[in-house]
Amino acid sequence: MEDTYGNLISSLAIANDKRIALLVMDGLGDCDNDGAGTALQQARTPNLDALAASGALGLIVPVATGVTPGSGPGHLSLFGYDPLVYQVGRGVLSALGVEFPLESRDVAARLNFCTLDKAGNITDRRAGRIPDSENRRILVKLKARLSPPQGVEVFLVTEAEHRAVLVLRGQDLDDNIGDTDPQQTGVPPLLAAREPHSNSRTADTVDELLHQAQGILADEPRANMLLARGFAKHPDWPAFADRFKLKPVAVAGYPMYRGVARLIGIPVFAAPTTAAEVCCKAAEALADHTFVFAHFKYTDKAGEDGDLAGKIKRIEEMDAALPGLLKAAPDVLIITGDHSTPPSIKAHSWHSVPVLMKAPFLRGGDGRHFDEVTCRSGQIGTIPAKELLPLAMAHAGKLEKFGA
Amino acid sequence: MEDTYGNLISSLAIANDKRIALLVMDGLGDCDNDGAGTALQQARTPNLDALAASGALGLIVPVATGVTPGSGPGHLSLFGYDPLVYQVGRGVLSALGVEFPLESRDVAARLNFCTLDKAGNITDRRAGRIPDSENRRILVKLKARLSPPQGVEVFLVTEAEHRAVLVLRGQDLDDNIGDTDPQQTGVPPLLAAREPHSNSRTADTVDELLHQAQGILADEPRANMLLARGFAKHPDWPAFADRFKLKPVAVAGYPMYRGVARLIGIPVFAAPTTAAEVCCKAAEALADHTFVFAHFKYTDKAGEDGDLAGKIKRIEEMDAALPGLLKAAPDVLIITGDHSTPPSIKAHSWHSVPVLMKAPFLRGGDGRHFDEVTCRSGQIGTIPAKELLPLAMAHAGKLEKFGA
Repeated sequence: MEDTYGNLISSLAIANDKRIALLVMDGLGDCDNDGAGTALQQARTPNLDALAASGALGLIVPVATGVTPGSGPGHLSLFGYDPLVYQVGRGVLSALGVEFPLESRDVAARLNFCTLDKAGNITDRRAGRIPDSENRRILVKLKARLSPPQGVEVFLVTEAEHRAVLVLRGQDLDDNIGDTDPQQTGVPPLLAAREPHSNSRTADTVDELLHQAQGILADEPRANMLLARGFAKHPDWPAFADRFKLKPVAVAGYPMYRGVARLIGIPVFAAPTTAAEVCCKAAEALADHTFVFAHFKYTDKAGEDGDLAGKIKRIEEMDAALPGLLKAAPDVLIITGDHSTPPSIKAHSWHSVPVLMKAPFLRGGDGRHFDEVTCRSGQIGTIPAKELLPLAMAHAGKLEKFGA
Repeated sequence: MEDTYGNLISSLAIANDKRIALLVMDGLGDCDNDGAGTALQQARTPNLDALAASGALGLIVPVATGVTPGSGPGHLSLFGYDPLVYQVGRGVLSALGVEFPLESRDVAARLNFCTLDKAGNITDRRAGRIPDSENRRILVKLKARLSPPQGVEVFLVTEAEHRAVLVLRGQDLDDNIGDTDPQQTGVPPLLAAREPHSNSRTADTVDELLHQAQGILADEPRANMLLARGFAKHPDWPAFADRFKLKPVAVAGYPMYRGVARLIGIPVFAAPTTAAEVCCKAAEALADHTFVFAHFKYTDKAGEDGDLAGKIKRIEEMDAALPGLLKAAPDVLIITGDHSTPPSIKAHSWHSVPVLMKAPFLRGGDGRHFDEVTCRSGQIGTIPAKELLPLAMAHAGKLEKFGA
């Protein structure tokens, strides 16, 4: 599979000094909350509304109709990378999430502590959701006693509760490694080196290490074994700066989003979390970059918590903070989300995501309020999210003509 | 890459006597000119408005979101050819633009006269933009003195200023030939036969001819060398008539558009330029053809000149001329553009293009005025331009059912 559209855009991209700001309000989209309206519809947003009146509105589809995106694909499509072509293994995303400085020779996997019975069968795939402190204590013990084969370094990092990240570092490691998590209880963990992975020396190493771990953890009451899945190497993808001839930087308070940016070589400028700080740092970053990705997490958090009032409040916070970003006068400003997180679902959803774009050379008449319904009849239309950055580049004069 | 959609339509196409007219107002689309509205929004167009009230409206995307099309891709997509699949080299488009009768064995390239200094480095890639007359004089001199290898004919045709077209004709010519234009000054011209083109005998011939040209032009003060680029053969594409089971003809006053039509085997009926003549000739052509492509250039010209008032006037001219076409009562009439040319940009742009279709079996209620904003909510929706002709064919009963 090829990213035909992205490659076309890359072939047309030219550098100039126009500056594009992409403000992502995580999980921005919503459904209508039993007729009360979406969070955006209910929010009082005078600054967003002023932008809507003079800007362009539309809806973006992060991956495909009906498909709920994870944070990785949700952001990659906003960065102009087809999320079906640029798929990244769970292990790498987990490593990015704990901000592990992954190298190209590393292999990463997601670990779960689990509970085995005396026969060696899994009784709890999450080891009773042990607290973070217990997770950390056990990882210290493991690191002290594991003896990896020569030339292989082992890194173990706590994520939260029963979750951790495994990174193997060494020359010639491969990621042709099976998940050892059978995704069910009552059976033993799987071998990493089983078919079709049995030719992998790294899978043998994983099995050896997990065997050692089982011995080391034998006296633990709950977390007496590890399950591993999503073995993956850092992908070798075209760097964002080369692909789109932009000088990019990220402003993001959460490790996962900094990590996704770093995946495509976008360096981190600052790590603020509040709406006011995000806008302020993004404005600073615009002084010396032609693409600034600014990430605001709390809209998604409120959605995940099922907190509609909280989501409305977070949107209003960002609206109030916007002048701090607008004063830097980006040539093109995109305000959108990486996916929808409706409070009524308490999770990411498949719904399209509203987008607002301020840019030169627009057509008028899109609407007076920024929400899912006004966006439906906006001039951007409903487009794949991966087409949004190229559209912004067109408005910024950063794409050459196709054909004579 | 395959034109999956176009091939599907081709497999469903059947001939009948219904007649489709495609009226292209070149560069029709616009942006909102700082709130004053697009040219179409400002134009008084009673005939177009009457058609809008009873017809179907929509927007077409010539190539892809954010991509500004050249005239070639802009028209190919209107003819139902995926412009990303059917890409034609610059040399062929240049030859079509001067109406050179290109044959399938020919190789064409775009030439620039340039100025070399005594060391052989380029000092001006456009030879001071010499006047057309000087261009013609020098080409006569070159033609008289060049001695091509046996079996190869050389054609040289003035385009304008420093621009000309080179065509080589002979058996077994290939187009694996590098550009000799280095796209910069201070360096010598490149070899046509350099890597990865060094296996090409035709590239060797090009280098030999350009070497001769340098000798012949040595005494010219400005145009003392030629740079060549975009070597290409006439593409071997399916003919429009076979692909869509239509009997087609073109009505177009400008060589480039007649040329693009001829690329897919559409013959030329007449070459008028004014709106009244275009409509009149298109009406005549409908008497004996099932597809008439009629081209009106001046909307684009006004856009390229940054002349908003002029663009409005050209639209109104075409509106006034429309009854001359309507009297031939085409079964399906499409009125659209090949791309947008906003006067505020003075060039082709990436914006979608408004389309109006009069046809049987429509749904009602699209709008009272033909412009970019009413088209946004029309029944055609926003579709790739390559889907427009198939839609017209459906309304004309020219497509069989898919599947039982």
